[in-house]
Amino acid sequence: MGNLFDMGDPVCGIEYKSFSHIEKDHQEIFNIQKFAFVSVPLSEKHEKFEFQPLEIYNYSFEWGTKVIGVVPDNINVDSPDIDIRSKSVNLLKKIFKLASYVGVNTVMLNLNNDRNMNLARMCAYHLHESHGRPLWLRISLSKDSDCDWRKWNNFLSLLPENQNKIGLVLELSEEVPSETDMMRWYSEVLLGLSISTSLFVANKGGYPVLRREFQKLISKSFKKKVQIIIHGEDIHGQGMDAYQKYIYNLYENKEPASVYEEFSRGYEELLQIPLQPLKDNLDNSTYEIFEKDPIKYKQYEEAIYQILLDRGSPVPGGEPTQQVVMVVGAGRGPLVRSSLNASRRSKIPVKVYAVEKNESALIILRNLVKDPFFSEVTIIDSDMRDWEPPEKADILVSELLGSFSDNELSPECLDGAQRLMKSDGLSVPCQYTSYLAPISSRKLYNNVATQPSDSSHEDPFHLGYVVRMQCVNLLDKVKSCFTFHHPNHDSVIDNTRHISLQFTSDTESVLHGFAGYFDAQLYRDVYISTHPDTHSPDMFSWFPMFFPIKQPQLVRQGEKIVIDFWRVVEPTKVWYEWALSEPVTQPIHNSRGVTYWIGLFS
Amino acid sequence: MGNLFDMGDPVCGIEYKSFSHIEKDHQEIFNIQKFAFVSVPLSEKHEKFEFQPLEIYNYSFEWGTKVIGVVPDNINVDSPDIDIRSKSVNLLKKIFKLASYVGVNTVMLNLNNDRNMNLARMCAYHLHESHGRPLWLRISLSKDSDCDWRKWNNFLSLLPENQNKIGLVLELSEEVPSETDMMRWYSEVLLGLSISTSLFVANKGGYPVLRREFQKLISKSFKKKVQIIIHGEDIHGQGMDAYQKYIYNLYENKEPASVYEEFSRGYEELLQIPLQPLKDNLDNSTYEIFEKDPIKYKQYEEAIYQILLDRGSPVPGGEPTQQVVMVVGAGRGPLVRSSLNASRRSKIPVKVYAVEKNESALIILRNLVKDPFFSEVTIIDSDMRDWEPPEKADILVSELLGSFSDNELSPECLDGAQRLMKSDGLSVPCQYTSYLAPISSRKLYNNVATQPSDSSHEDPFHLGYVVRMQCVNLLDKVKSCFTFHHPNHDSVIDNTRHISLQFTSDTESVLHGFAGYFDAQLYRDVYISTHPDTHSPDMFSWFPMFFPIKQPQLVRQGEKIVIDFWRVVEPTKVWYEWALSEPVTQPIHNSRGVTYWIGLFS
Repeated sequence: MGNLFDMGDPVCGIEYKSFSHIEKDHQEIFNIQKFAFVSVPLSEKHEKFEFQPLEIYNYSFEWGTKVIGVVPDNINVDSPDIDIRSKSVNLLKKIFKLASYVGVNTVMLNLNNDRNMNLARMCAYHLHESHGRPLWLRISLSKDSDCDWRKWNNFLSLLPENQNKIGLVLELSEEVPSETDMMRWYSEVLLGLSISTSLFVANKGGYPVLRREFQKLISKSFKKKVQIIIHGEDIHGQGMDAYQKYIYNLYENKEPASVYEEFSRGYEELLQIPLQPLKDNLDNSTYEIFEKDPIKYKQYEEAIYQILLDRGSPVPGGEPTQQVVMVVGAGRGPLVRSSLNASRRSKIPVKVYAVEKNESALIILRNLVKDPFFSEVTIIDSDMRDWEPPEKADILVSELLGSFSDNELSPECLDGAQRLMKSDGLSVPCQYTSYLAPISSRKLYNNVATQPSDSSHEDPFHLGYVVRMQCVNLLDKVKSCFTFHHPNHDSVIDNTRHISLQFTSDTESVLHGFAGYFDAQLYRDVYISTHPDTHSPDMFSWFPMFFPIKQPQLVRQGEKIVIDFWRVVEPTKVWYEWALSEPVTQPIHNSRGVTYWIGLFS
Repeated sequence: MGNLFDMGDPVCGIEYKSFSHIEKDHQEIFNIQKFAFVSVPLSEKHEKFEFQPLEIYNYSFEWGTKVIGVVPDNINVDSPDIDIRSKSVNLLKKIFKLASYVGVNTVMLNLNNDRNMNLARMCAYHLHESHGRPLWLRISLSKDSDCDWRKWNNFLSLLPENQNKIGLVLELSEEVPSETDMMRWYSEVLLGLSISTSLFVANKGGYPVLRREFQKLISKSFKKKVQIIIHGEDIHGQGMDAYQKYIYNLYENKEPASVYEEFSRGYEELLQIPLQPLKDNLDNSTYEIFEKDPIKYKQYEEAIYQILLDRGSPVPGGEPTQQVVMVVGAGRGPLVRSSLNASRRSKIPVKVYAVEKNESALIILRNLVKDPFFSEVTIIDSDMRDWEPPEKADILVSELLGSFSDNELSPECLDGAQRLMKSDGLSVPCQYTSYLAPISSRKLYNNVATQPSDSSHEDPFHLGYVVRMQCVNLLDKVKSCFTFHHPNHDSVIDNTRHISLQFTSDTESVLHGFAGYFDAQLYRDVYISTHPDTHSPDMFSWFPMFFPIKQPQLVRQGEKIVIDFWRVVEPTKVWYEWALSEPVTQPIHNSRGVTYWIGLFS
C-alpha cells in the first residue's frame, strides 16, 4: 500500500470539516492532543461549485506525512443533474491537480453513489498522474452490507487491474457490523475506521467511551493494522484528546499476540515461493527457524513413544525389544532428539540411523552426536533413495511435508525409502491429507499480480505460494483434497491425483483463489495440522498455501464454486494444475507444469 | 485457423469408421468420387483399450493434406469409471503422440461428456506439443441447444486464452437447428457440418437429397466457409459420390454474393486500425476504393439536389439564385462531381470551392477540373480550419464520417469550418448518430488477442477496430449512442459525451465486445446508414467498428448488459473509453486514451 501511516502502532487521526481549525490548532492537535494525522477538506463547500483556493494551499505544512486531504461531499461527478455533474468534474480535476501540486500524499473521497462510473474514470487519471499516491475511499456503513460491499467492489473493478494504491475506510454507524461482514471487509484493503464522536457514550467520570461491541471490533481491527479517524464535535466536553486517549487505551489493552502471531509478524500476506528440498539444500537459518517450533517435535516424540511402547514393550518377565529407527532427512537432528527422548521415556532401547544428504547439515549433526546422549546414533551420509542399509527399520521417521502436505514430494521420497523398512515397519507420519478452501483476499491478489516475473515463473498466477494469511476471507468450509499413506503396499504405486471439489459461497464476494492446508497422522491419534479447525496450537512451521486464480471471479451468496485439482507426476518432476469450472469456467492454471513444478532430483 | 482445407470453395469430405476402406479405396475416394478429404479413426475400437498400431501408420499417405484423424468414441478420459478413465488417458496420449509423429495435421475428437476436464488438460498438452496443429471438436446436436453450447464453451474456456487452433464441427441430427442457434454457432469457430447419409432422402430418381430446411442451412453455411463431412453407409445405393455430388450441387446453386459481400471478400473478421485523416494523409488507393461506392455519392447528390431546389429555385418570373457550395476535404473530387450533377439536374447554378489539404490529392483534383464540366470549381489548397474565404457558403459539404460516425473527428472539423457558412447555411450531413450492440464472436476476440502489439497500441483490447463482421452474433438490438448536428449554434460547443446503454441478452453466450455503426442525415429524408436495420443497400464505404472487452464475459439469456461509453476531448486529441458494469464490472478500457486516440493535428 505504501501507506505513510503504516507505522506498526495504531494511529488515531482527527478529521475537521474546515481548514480553519488546523491552522489555528496545529500545535495543539499534534503536540498536545497527540493525534497522528489530520483529515481536512481540500476545498470549502460552495453552492456554485467554484473552486476556493483556500489558505490551505498557502500554508506551509507537513502535507506528505500528517494530512489526509478530503474531497468535499457536495462534489458529485456522477450526479444525474448534468449541471452539477459537469461542474463537479471541473472542480474535482482542480482539486486533484492542486493536491498533487502542494504534495498532499493521501486523498480521501466519499463513495456516496451506487454507481460511480465517472468518479472511477477520474480516479484512474489521478492515480496515474499523481504517480501512485494513495487514494482512500470512504463508505458509510448502512443496514445493507451487501449493497455497501457492491458499491466498493464495483468502484474498484472499474480501475486498472493490479490496483494497489486504493485503500478503504469505513464510516461506522450506530449499528455494529457483524463478524461475517467484517471478515469480508478485512479481506479488502481496509485501512481505516472513521468514527463520529456521537458514537461515544460518557462513562461514570463523564469521559467518552465506546460500547462493548465497538471496543471488540476496534481491538480486532488493530490486529489487521486498521487505523482510526475521529470526527465530529467535542460533545463530551473533555477535549478532543479524550477520544484519542480512549482509542490508545483500547490498543494498550488489546489481546496479546499468540506465539504463532508473534512468529509470523511481518510475514502477513507476504508471498513465498515454496521450498524445493530435493532440488535445493536448505540453509542453516531455515533449519534454525523450523527447529524452534514448540509443538511439531513434541508430537513426533509422542508418536514414536507410543510406537515404541506398542512394538518394544517386554512380554511379562522378558526384556524390551530394541527398535531400529531411521530418520530419513535428519537435517540438524531434531527428529533424532525426539526419537531418543521417546526411547528414554518409554525405556525401550533404540538404534537410530540418521540419514541426511545435505553436507552443511551433516557438519552440525556430526558435532551433535559427540554428546553421549546421542550414543545410539549412526550418521548416514546419503540420499535416502540410494542408501543400502545393514538392517531394516522398525520405524521410518521423516519430516518431508510441505504446506500442502505432498508438495515437497514426501510421497515419492517415502515410496523410495520404504524398502528400508521391515515388512511390518511403521512410517511416521503414516498418512497425510491436503485441504482446500475458496478465499477472497484483495491484498493477496494484488501481491501476486505485482510479483516480479522471472524466466522460471513466467506468469505469477500459475504458481502456488506459501503465505501467512491474515486478511483473508474463507468463503466456505475447508474440504479435503489428496491423501497419501505410508508404507504404500499397492501393487502399482500411483501418486497422481485428480479431484473435483464443490463449495458453496457463504457470502457475495470476489473469489481470488484457494487456501491450502494439511494434516498428518503421525501415529494413532497423534496429529499435526494446519487445518484452521484443528490447527496444532502454536505450531508455526507451516504457513498455508495460496493457489491464485488469474481472473478474480465474482460469486454470489449461495453460488457453487467448483475447482478441479490435479497432481501430475512425470519421471523428473511433479506439479499441480487447477481449474475453476463453477460459477464459470476459466483456463487451466499451470498447464503442463510450465510455470511451477517440483523437481525429483537435485 | 491455419486450416488446410480452407480453400475458398466448399469442400466435402467423407468419414470412415475403419481404416480398411481408405487403404482399399484410396484412388476411388479422391480421384473418382472426388471427396476432398477423408476422416478415419486413429485407432480401432478395442474392448481392452489396447493401442492398435494399425496398418494406418505404416501406410505412406498425404496425412497432412487429406486426412482428419478421428479419436475413437470409446476413449473417455473423463469417465466416472476409474479404470476406463486411466486406460483412456494412456491410450489418448499414445494416439496424440503417433498422430504428431506420422504427421496427421488435424485431429478430431467427439465431445460426448458434459464435463471434459481431463480432455481439456490433454488437449492443452497436445496443442502445445504438436506445435499448433489444429484440433477439431465435434458436438452432436441435441434438442437442448443451450446444453450443447455450454459443453463447447466450457471445454474451450479451460484451454489457454487466445486459443485459435480449435475448430468446431457440428453433427446434425434429424432436427434442424433454429436460425438463432445457428447464429450462435457461426459466431464460434464453426468449421464443419458432419452429416449422416441417413439424413438424406431419395428423390424421384432414387438419388440422395436433403430436406429443404437442411438445404437452406447448408447454403447459408457455405457463406461462412463451413465444410461438410459425410459419414455412414451408401444407403441409397447410388455410390458414395452421389452424396458428394449433391453437396457440390447445392454449392453451385447457392445465392450469389451481394455487391457488399463481393467488395468485402477476404476482409471477413480482419481487424483494421481506423484511419486518422487529420493526422495522416490518405493514399491514392484508399481514395480509389472509396470513390467506387455505388450509393454514397448518389445520396450526397440527392441531398444537394434537394437543397438547391429549396434554396435556389426562382420565385415566379425570377431567376434561380446561384448557390455557393464548399466541399471541405474534397479529396480527388467525388463530392465536387456530386454537387455539379445536382446543379445540372436542378438547373440551379452553383459556385463550388473544393478545399483540400492533401498535396497528392490536389494533383489529381487540379487535373480533373481542367474538364469544362468542372468550370464552376475553385480549388483551395488549405486546411478547412485555417482558410479565410472570399465569400460564405450556402452549402457546406463534407465526408468526414468514420465507421462510428464521429470517430474521424467530423464534429471538431465541422465546428471549425462552420465560420465559412452563411448564417442560414446548411451542412451536408446535418446530423449523425453512432450505434452500439453487444456481440459475441470468438474469432474477433482471438484476432484481437493475437494482434501484434506495438509501442503505440500497447494493449490490443483498448482499441476500436474497423472490421467486416461475418461470423458475429448480435446479442440484442442496436441502440443509439452519440449524436452530433451541424451547424452547431450552442453558446458553448461541447463535443464530449457520456452514455450508459443497457441491453438484454437474447441468448446465453459469451460477450466479446460491442459492434459500432452509424447513420447520417444528409438532408431531410436522405440518409446514409451502416445500421444493420437501415443499411444503405450495397454501400461498402464503411465496415462496422468493433470495441472489444478484454475479459470475455459469460451472459445468460435475459441477463442485463450495461456499457458506459465516453467521448473525451482534450486540446490535441479525442478518444473513447468504455466500461462494462453489468453483468459484472470490468476495468475501464482505454483509460486516459493511453492506447487509442485520434489526433486533432497532423
